[in-house]
Amino acid sequence: MKESVIADIRVLPFGTETASLSHYIAACVDILKQATDISYQITPMATMVQGPLERVLELAQEMHEVPFTMGVSRVVTNISIDDRRDKPITMESKVEAVTQKLQATPDRIPVDVN
Amino acid sequence: MKESVIADIRVLPFGTETASLSHYIAACVDILKQATDISYQITPMATMVQGPLERVLELAQEMHEVPFTMGVSRVVTNISIDDRRDKPITMESKVEAVTQKLQATPDRIPVDVN
Amino acid sequence: MKESVIADIRVLPFGTETASLSHYIAACVDILKQATDISYQITPMATMVQGPLERVLELAQEMHEVPFTMGVSRVVTNISIDDRRDKPITMESKVEAVTQKLQATPDRIPVDVN
Amino acid sequence: MKESVIADIRVLPFGTETASLSHYIAACVDILKQATDISYQITPMATMVQGPLERVLELAQEMHEVPFTMGVSRVVTNISIDDRRDKPITMESKVEAVTQKLQATPDRIPVDVN
Repeated sequence: MKESVIADIRVLPFGTETASLSHYIAACVDILKQATDISYQITPMATMVQGPLERVLELAQEMHEVPFTMGVSRVVTNISIDDRRDKPITMESKVEAVTQKLQATPDRIPVDVN
Repeated sequence: MKESVIADIRVLPFGTETASLSHYIAACVDILKQATDISYQITPMATMVQGPLERVLELAQEMHEVPFTMGVSRVVTNISIDDRRDKPITMESKVEAVTQKLQATPDRIPVDVN
Repeated sequence: MKESVIADIRVLPFGTETASLSHYIAACVDILKQATDISYQITPMATMVQGPLERVLELAQEMHEVPFTMGVSRVVTNISIDDRRDKPITMESKVEAVTQKLQATPDRIPVDVN
Repeated sequence: MKESVIADIRVLPFGTETASLSHYIAACVDILKQATDISYQITPMATMVQGPLERVLELAQEMHEVPFTMGVSRVVTNISIDDRRDKPITMESKVEAVTQKLQATPDRIPVDVN
């Protein structure tokens, strides 16, 4: 089995009529929705993808093309890839690893000094 | 009321003993857990924060200091700020705006050609 | 003396009339031009800044405000901070460290096999 | 002729013995030095590349592999692509467009109020 990487992909169109970008982003995410060999997750700032590195870059390139097909003349795409090869990682395991350690920390209860 | 921005913050420590970073990240997120005036969300690649711009930058700076207090000598911190002033945005509304437009797209059902 | 960090700052305006962004970027860089306590360098993808962390974040916030004063309603700003505390770094020393090691690598000269 | 994009590529290795990263970065840049069909520029925070989109992504993937061949078990790679299709851009033209507009702004000369 091909190892998976976790990536976040952000496709930003410029010179658009308004500052609303969600219909461009939805059209980009549609590429991921059709791809059955990867997992994805929409977050407030980017779309997370989990899959083999080469496939993730291929999909990122397809997503990058989408706003051009919608009439946009300039696109800035950011791709961030986290690739760990000493042990398998998933989108869930990464969040869980942080959350577990976080829950171990007790809330700082305001001390009553009286 | 002070307008909110959405930001993603990623604090990366270098020269650490192993490639495991989650205990550093948990200690950074702990800063946000103690902050009662902002919202945050842990994602597989970064922590999302919603709050007034100045406060978000202040918290990002506090998070950036955390790995140094844990013995790390080099930290790279990425902060990405989405600031929209023509209408209010929240972490939820941003994801929802994309998801709704996405759900409007029918799944491409494989056509039975027989 | 306050330690310096190296940062790259990218201010991106959305919903602009055209896809040309250079006059917005120039207005942002103007903030750095007026600041006499930091160094900066314009690169093809972002502006690099060298100075104390707190000052760099303060200037990034001022730069982020610039497109709003020019009529833009949405701005995405990316800030990346490299902070090394085991030895001093400058923008020049970072490039030099790479270039020196690069020059140590001989060019792969195509071997004439005849 | 295939259109060019401008990209910045940052390859970050984790769990390294020290916080010095320049020998990893030099080995990554070596990939670009051997590539004769693209231009590149080393900056304090990332390496800028100019070339056809597909080729840039191919080289980014090759660069991403380099630290693994040097014994690193986790690599985070950031790729940022600026793709403008209404007019040709180069690394030089982008910097020049900003610098020219900047030079048009007179320095704010401190006014002698006496």
